[in-house]
Amino acid sequence: MKKKINKIVFENDLKLDCGLFLKKCEIAFETYGKLNKSKSNAIFICHALSGDQYCSGISPITKKNGWWNELVGPKKPINTEDFFVICSNVIGGCQGSTGPSSINPETGKRYDLTFPVITISDMVKAQVKLIDHLKIEKLFAVIGGSMGGMQALEWGVSFSKRVHAIIPIATSYRHSAQNIAFHEIGRQSIMSDPSWHKGKYIDKRTKPKRGLSVARMIAHITYLSESALQRKFGRNLQKGQKFSYKFDVDFQIESYLKHQGFSFVDRFDANSYLYITKAMDYFDLSVAQNKLFKKFKKIKIRFCFFTFSSDWLFPTSETKAMIKFLNSCGSNVSFVEIETDKGHDAFLLNEIKFHKILTGFLNGLKKSASND
Amino acid sequence: MKKKINKIVFENDLKLDCGLFLKKCEIAFETYGKLNKSKSNAIFICHALSGDQYCSGISPITKKNGWWNELVGPKKPINTEDFFVICSNVIGGCQGSTGPSSINPETGKRYDLTFPVITISDMVKAQVKLIDHLKIEKLFAVIGGSMGGMQALEWGVSFSKRVHAIIPIATSYRHSAQNIAFHEIGRQSIMSDPSWHKGKYIDKRTKPKRGLSVARMIAHITYLSESALQRKFGRNLQKGQKFSYKFDVDFQIESYLKHQGFSFVDRFDANSYLYITKAMDYFDLSVAQNKLFKKFKKIKIRFCFFTFSSDWLFPTSETKAMIKFLNSCGSNVSFVEIETDKGHDAFLLNEIKFHKILTGFLNGLKKSASND
Repeated sequence: MKKKINKIVFENDLKLDCGLFLKKCEIAFETYGKLNKSKSNAIFICHALSGDQYCSGISPITKKNGWWNELVGPKKPINTEDFFVICSNVIGGCQGSTGPSSINPETGKRYDLTFPVITISDMVKAQVKLIDHLKIEKLFAVIGGSMGGMQALEWGVSFSKRVHAIIPIATSYRHSAQNIAFHEIGRQSIMSDPSWHKGKYIDKRTKPKRGLSVARMIAHITYLSESALQRKFGRNLQKGQKFSYKFDVDFQIESYLKHQGFSFVDRFDANSYLYITKAMDYFDLSVAQNKLFKKFKKIKIRFCFFTFSSDWLFPTSETKAMIKFLNSCGSNVSFVEIETDKGHDAFLLNEIKFHKILTGFLNGLKKSASND
Repeated sequence: MKKKINKIVFENDLKLDCGLFLKKCEIAFETYGKLNKSKSNAIFICHALSGDQYCSGISPITKKNGWWNELVGPKKPINTEDFFVICSNVIGGCQGSTGPSSINPETGKRYDLTFPVITISDMVKAQVKLIDHLKIEKLFAVIGGSMGGMQALEWGVSFSKRVHAIIPIATSYRHSAQNIAFHEIGRQSIMSDPSWHKGKYIDKRTKPKRGLSVARMIAHITYLSESALQRKFGRNLQKGQKFSYKFDVDFQIESYLKHQGFSFVDRFDANSYLYITKAMDYFDLSVAQNKLFKKFKKIKIRFCFFTFSSDWLFPTSETKAMIKFLNSCGSNVSFVEIETDKGHDAFLLNEIKFHKILTGFLNGLKKSASND
């Protein structure tokens, strides 16, 4: 039985950064735990590129643990016995929120590539409408890793009065040239697949499986560190100890990547991949830095940044640049670099030190919040 | 007018590592400078993945400078007034040496994917036949960068009596898991292109342009360092200062990569790309280390290794592992790490320090060789 998707429909149009409007925009979301009477215990979790609203428990999509089940749940670091956790699918996504595979209510036809190009700020504007709907004035915290961290930062920049603390993890204030390059190749790979049909593949009852699979494989390498790849796979061969002298799979790393690529195709929409990667590429708080400087001098947000030492997609140096800037504004900033060889993916994995420090930070925050 | 390709045809079959034989194998090559009477001034230059035999002067393929024109020529670091330089297209390649796009002399049909999977050692065996043909008993030096460096190392391992010095540049004793991963994605991209036609695209009068172009774009990122990308492109926009809110090119880095991808398609064969990347993936001297250990104790080869500090494809650490091993064998090893932000590509660029040190090493070698 297919799980019914929890969603709300916005009555008012959502104005986007590109100048266009989304009519009757839908946001699919999940909540975990209970909102307290004073509505002061709500944590908003923002998901990453390939994530969704099912961060805790079993995901109805994959039938496996939700993507942050290690962190979110009863007695876990983000303790749902204490906190009311909200997690929504980003707009542009493919798990129930309005995206390129949705029907345009104005035309009755699927958006496909007529869906407007969205930004991280547009995603956050939709999240704000969701907490308005839930009648929550101020969030206890916004937490997210990777693209989720970009959204957390955007909450701090544009909706600073609606949030007490921001916890950006394994992220940056802007996408670097190398990150844009990897994304662009992924998009080229999708758009080069003849089954993409200029974005109209759903109506053609097909999917650009090969293109999306290659895009995912490219991205997947960037999520892992060289040393973790070497430790996990090295040059181990798939079958026996001899080369095949064919173009089949020889090495375990090849088989692993192929599996990552092909399994992704089943759960993710190719056009959503185009829109969400573009939103990440456009993200750049440094453009607005002068404005930010003035803003952050006046606001009282608590920040806690996390990075992972072997993350080469969002290296610690970029978070340090933010810390420097925020400190120069007199902001209240904590920062922890976790030593690990697991690369960018570490934010999704069972990194005990990260989990302990996050637990401690949230506990400390409860005390300081109650003194506000 | 099309330049005639210099080539020789082997009368005897070339036995390959996979157990098969190449009949009437052809090797296309260029020479620069003059061989002296004692035949003691020959330097063999081995090209990298996308290289060819046109290392000096103007390439008849691109109509631009040969790929190592900065280094090879009169009064240049590899001075063709002193040295006789030989450079041949690798077998499996697409510039005149026998490869997948050649006609199989046994069947009269194009090899395509019936071409046997070759190794770095097979490439070197063909090069040895070429110097036999040129009646050169002992090379002054074998020099190469990246895959060319792998060939140089292979000369040292398997034909140590035929070479006085080995100069491996920006290379490794084996391809790492991450390197295999990037190559496999490139191959998947080519083989996913419907115009690939299971390798039979030439007879279908087409080309897997999109797949090969994406493969080249992926590889190209790995040739550059993150900091060079940031310095050269950063987040600079292609047109004006505003986002397009479309899936066209927004950033200069996107346009640059697309250009790299599409221009590569004109000069390189997709099946050759499959075979050559596979040969690199198979390369692993560490497998033979015990055998090597004994061998290197007895031989007198001079080694001079070069690495580039920002090369993340073939990091300095891998060369250091070789240096350690060779020193433990009592080998005569020099090693220089060049400080640069230009990444792996630095070995092809105008890196003045690299060029000066290489000149010095070759001059020193001339003296020691004459004392032998």
